[in-house]
Formats: sequence, C-alpha cells, structure tokens
Amino acid sequence: MSVTAARGFSAAGVAAGIKSNGNPDLALVVNNGPCRAAAGVFTANRVKAAPVVWSEQVIRGGAVSAVILNSGGANACTGAPGFQDTRATAEKVAAVLDGHRAGEVAVASTGLIGTRLPMDRILPGVETVAAALAEDGGEQAAVAIKTTDSVHKTAVFEGEGWTVGGMAKGAGMLAPGLATMLVVLTTDADLDSKALDKALRGATRLTFDRVDSDGCMSTNDTVLLLASGASGKTPEYAAFAEAVRTVCEDLARQLIGDAEGASKDIRIDVVNAATEDDAVEAGRSIARNNLLKCAIHGEDPNWGRVLSAIGTTGASFEPDRLNVAINGVWVCKDGSIGADRDGVDMSGREVVITADLAAGTEAATLWANDLTAEYVHENSAYSS
Amino acid sequence: MSVTAARGFSAAGVAAGIKSNGNPDLALVVNNGPCRAAAGVFTANRVKAAPVVWSEQVIRGGAVSAVILNSGGANACTGAPGFQDTRATAEKVAAVLDGHRAGEVAVASTGLIGTRLPMDRILPGVETVAAALAEDGGEQAAVAIKTTDSVHKTAVFEGEGWTVGGMAKGAGMLAPGLATMLVVLTTDADLDSKALDKALRGATRLTFDRVDSDGCMSTNDTVLLLASGASGKTPEYAAFAEAVRTVCEDLARQLIGDAEGASKDIRIDVVNAATEDDAVEAGRSIARNNLLKCAIHGEDPNWGRVLSAIGTTGASFEPDRLNVAINGVWVCKDGSIGADRDGVDMSGREVVITADLAAGTEAATLWANDLTAEYVHENSAYSS
Repeated sequence: MSVTAARGFSAAGVAAGIKSNGNPDLALVVNNGPCRAAAGVFTANRVKAAPVVWSEQVIRGGAVSAVILNSGGANACTGAPGFQDTRATAEKVAAVLDGHRAGEVAVASTGLIGTRLPMDRILPGVETVAAALAEDGGEQAAVAIKTTDSVHKTAVFEGEGWTVGGMAKGAGMLAPGLATMLVVLTTDADLDSKALDKALRGATRLTFDRVDSDGCMSTNDTVLLLASGASGKTPEYAAFAEAVRTVCEDLARQLIGDAEGASKDIRIDVVNAATEDDAVEAGRSIARNNLLKCAIHGEDPNWGRVLSAIGTTGASFEPDRLNVAINGVWVCKDGSIGADRDGVDMSGREVVITADLAAGTEAATLWANDLTAEYVHENSAYSS
Repeated sequence: MSVTAARGFSAAGVAAGIKSNGNPDLALVVNNGPCRAAAGVFTANRVKAAPVVWSEQVIRGGAVSAVILNSGGANACTGAPGFQDTRATAEKVAAVLDGHRAGEVAVASTGLIGTRLPMDRILPGVETVAAALAEDGGEQAAVAIKTTDSVHKTAVFEGEGWTVGGMAKGAGMLAPGLATMLVVLTTDADLDSKALDKALRGATRLTFDRVDSDGCMSTNDTVLLLASGASGKTPEYAAFAEAVRTVCEDLARQLIGDAEGASKDIRIDVVNAATEDDAVEAGRSIARNNLLKCAIHGEDPNWGRVLSAIGTTGASFEPDRLNVAINGVWVCKDGSIGADRDGVDMSGREVVITADLAAGTEAATLWANDLTAEYVHENSAYSS
C-alpha cells in the first residue's frame, strides 16, 4: 500500500529507460489534497546532489504537491547543468499535471554519482508515469526507486480514521544523517507543515539517523512527509508523531535487513550512558568498526573489538567499568574477561550487542550490518 | 639490521610457546648504554592494554634499559591480573639481566584482546630470549613480534657516525593515533629524552598517524625510541629528527604494503587546504570510506565516493570548487564531471588520489588500503 495507503494520494512507477537493464526507474507521487503541507529532512553531507538542493528549496516553501523520483542516476556532482536537469524535471511534472507549480514539486534521485541524467528519457518518462497514476500505485512507485535493493520497502500505520504510509529505498551508502537514500511518507491527516516537520525530525533522529550499514553518508538522502488532509481528521500530535516514528522504524529496519551483501543485522544497545549523545557516539563507533563487523560475520563474539571501538570515543566511561553482552551473554565484565565466549550463540541473522557504559541512565539503540565478502564484491565489481 | 643496526644494542627473538603454532613470539631489545634515554608514543585509545599503561609509566621515568615484546596475546582488557602479568614480565627481565631495574623495562604485547597471557610460558621464555641476546639479533626480534604480518619489517638510516634503526609489526587494526601496533627504534646517537621525545612525536605525527588501513584504533599501539649514546656523537637536532622521520616513514609504508588482505596501497594527497588539520581531516575521511575502498579494489575510478567522503567533514571548501585526480587524471573538476574516467589506469598496486580543496595552500599525505574479500576473510575466520 505504500504511499497510497493514505487517502488523497496517487502514485505510479514505470520503466523510463534510465536504467540500461529495463527495470522500473521513475516514480511519481501526487498529493491530490485538499492540503499540501509537507516536511523534509535531507542529507547532512555538504556535497549535496542537485535534487537535494532543489527539494530543500521546495520544502522551505511549505507545500509539496508532487514528488518525482528516479533511480539509475544520483544527479550528484553534476554542477549547474545537473541542477538545470532537476529544475526541468520538476517543470515537466508541473506542466503534465493539472494545477501544479514546479516550485511545489520535490525531486529525488538515486544511483551513480557524477554522471548526468539522460533527460531525453526522463522528460518523456514523466508523461508516461503521470498517465499511469493510480490510487493504488504505491507498490509500483516503491519498486521504481530500487537500485541495488533486493526488495521494495513499504510500511503503513493505521490511526483512528487517518493513516501514515511510506516507501523507502536504500541498500548501500547507509549512514547517519540520514541513513536512507530515499523515503516518501504520506498521510491523510490534516496537519500543518510545522507539525509535520516536528514529527518527521523527531522520528528520523531515532530511526534513520541510527541506522549505519557501512559508515558512508550519501549525497542524496531525502525523507519527505506529505499530508493531504483527505481524512478530514487532525490527530493528537503525540499519536501522529508516534505513527510517523513507527513507520520510519519499520522502513529503517527493512533497509538494514536488505543491506548490500550483509548476512547479519546487528542491534547495538548502549545502556547506562551519561547522556543520550554519549550513547549514540559509542553506538556509532561500534557500528562502524570494520574488524568487529568482520568478527560478527564469522560468528566470533570478539568483545575486545567492542571495547576497542568504545575506547576511541569521547563518551563518559571508565575503561575498567565497561560491560559488554553479546546475544545476552556478558562476555566482558568490568572491562575484563567475563562469561565464557563459547556460551554465545551467534547463528541467527540478528546479533544484539549490549554495551553498558556504567556512567549514567541514558540509552540508545543503533542498527548496523556485518561486513562480508559479498559487500566488497557488490561495491567493487561495478560503479554504483 | 633492525634494532641492532645502531651500536650499543643487543636483541633476540625466540619461540616461547605463547603462540600455539610454534612460531617465534617473544622478543627482547636491550640498551647496553652508556646512555638509556628514551621516548615513547602510545595509542590514543582510552581502552589501553596493560603493557601500554605500564610502558607509559616507564617512559615518564625518562630511561628505558630494555624492551620485552610478545606476540600471541595483547594483554588488553584483562584487568588488574593482566597488569600484574605485565609487571611480573618486566621484573623477570630485570632479574635475568645484570644491572637492570623493572621500572626501566618497557613491555609491549600484541594479539587477541581479552585473554590472559600464558605466564607459565612467558617467564621461562624471558630466560631463553635473554640467553639468545646478540649484537646482530635485530632480525630475529623483528620476526618474533609478527602476528598476521606476512613479512617482518625493519628500516635503517645511517647518519654521519650515528645510526637510527627500527622494527615494526602491524597488519590490521591500523589507524591513526597510532597506526602501528608495535615499533621499536634505536639509535647510538647521544641525545637526551627530551630531544628524543620531540623527534619521535614529530615523526609519528607525519607517518604512523597518517596511515589508516582499516579505521580501527588499537588498544596496544606503542612506538619507542631508545638511545644508547654508543656512537659518542650528538647530531644536529634537525638531521636526527629527519633520520627518525625517514625510518618511521619507511616502516609505515611497509605496514600499509603488508596490510591484511589488501591488494592496493592508496596514497591520498590532499592539497590546497586552508589548514593542515583540514587536509588531514579530509584525507582521513577518504581513507576510511568503505565504498571508495571497495571501488579501488575493483579498479573503478569512482570519484563520486571521494567527494561524498569529503562532504562529511568540517574542512573548509566549496563543493563546486573541489577537484579530484585519480592516478593523475582529473576526473572531477569544480565539483563536477572532469576528464574521462576511462583514461584512468588503476592496474598497479599503488593508487594515488589527489583531492584539491581549493581553499588554501596547506597539504597532507595519508596512506590507506583497499577493502577486499580477503580482509573480511582474515578478520572473520578466526579471533585476532
């Protein structure tokens, strides 16, 4: 159901010939109103793709009437001509749809950095995808934004008379700020852009920002939340924020579960930290430690690599008070040897690392993947 | 010639049975004087192995008469009993050698974190290695500190009537602060600890600190510089500092050349930075980008991943002024598409990435490795 689970939206996904393999590569999501409130969160990378620069500008206007997304090319590091391509795409969408302005059309792109988009395929593709718009087109849209994703990713939360739905793509270059390549969330709740922005930032901070597949931050990360108001309902803010967080968490977990070449999903629970920031910093350092990620791939409960990762951070802790559990077995106690490592069962897909900083009462959970030969293969065998 | 190239030193390496495969695993370097001045630089990891804590204390005393080094176990995260093991090892060395005090015996260990050392092997081993001491024992010592190193690493610089020599081990967990697991440098120059410290810090800052094989910082990194004064010469400080830097650079390059599973050595020249710190920060971010490291393994001149890495830093730059060359071909100009990627030849072992920040006149060079399936295999197949 994806982005069309909420009322007031139509969507479509088509193969426009951007990808050479003929797979779907162009998606359109249209907000049919009555409202067009929207919020967006974008990559913290200072090298931003043209569609990110464009869509940030659109979001500042406070309204989004449509989102056009392409896979098969990131339109990043393409200079002024690349930005002109993004603008031309938005203008084409506005021209093809009735009652839309280019300044309210968000654009998102994903694929190889540093190549121009084939505009001779995209502009006719906009006509094709607009002609295919349907109130149940959410799945096709989700399929069309895939790059190396093995499956398309959607999630839905049903509120009382209102709905939040969404789609995501992302399988590599997943790292905080944001973790995800492209996400579009829709709701038929009637809320203004300010409320949407607050709910979206609160949700991404705890979900996409805490997913770190490979430590690499994208130039194109975009998360959009569009509200049509078609349900006629204005939910309590807290209930709505929780719904957005739930959908984001679901999609974030799907991203980690489908990360390039991964064989394990790693949940990192940092507990008893002095501050939440400390917990996140320690968690990120653990999430990014290649040696640990290799050990987990090999089902080796190598807790020394967890301590070594924590030791590189500025978090508050005393080395001889640190405790680490792997899948519930406290293999490290007081910074030293704890329970027998042989008691740890790491045969499942999910591995839980609990890092107890013994420095306070704050906590954070992060998600990561193991490092595998398949990851290396997927990212060395061809440009992406 | 290693640590015995300089006069006034003897060394040995033996198999003490710490490693289960019977390979050499215990090395001893003795400074026979007349001086015993010394300096040391240690890991910046806050989780420090027992021998690091011990040796930092020894160095603060200003004199080192001997260094005992073992492979086969890091003695890290082993608590108070582990520290007692280190102390007992130093005391044993002092007892076996004439005229030595435990407080002047540095200890270094390398191997798996989180297991106790087999002291029933190490203490008798100290007797064996002391009995094997020889003025040409430097090579054997260098061999005995190997872990996953495929070759032992030594370097020598001949000054005018004085010499600087050294040995190093390290093949994984190589990252700044410091890059190297264990390094012992010796000189027969007559210099005090203060001059040694200044020369050593100056050299490591530009060499071992700028090597980043896998982004993982060790708990055990130790670089020691011992001066015997046996040449009777006191070189000009600048000439001596340059000699130390030359030996460190030689050893650092050998570490990168022998890094676990690597198929490429990557030299990263960051140029036209506003400050040296900016150059180093941008260089480190490039050095640690897994996606780029995979691309280089696949001989793919994926410059977008270089820009994406620079974009995560706080260095001064404008995205649309960045330039990137790979092996001399400027594939990225003004943050956008430059020369044809097909013109880049990446078939050799060494790949040079030049990142032009176009923001000033400072520069820095860093060294890294590619990311390979073999790296994953070496670090997942067994604990290390």
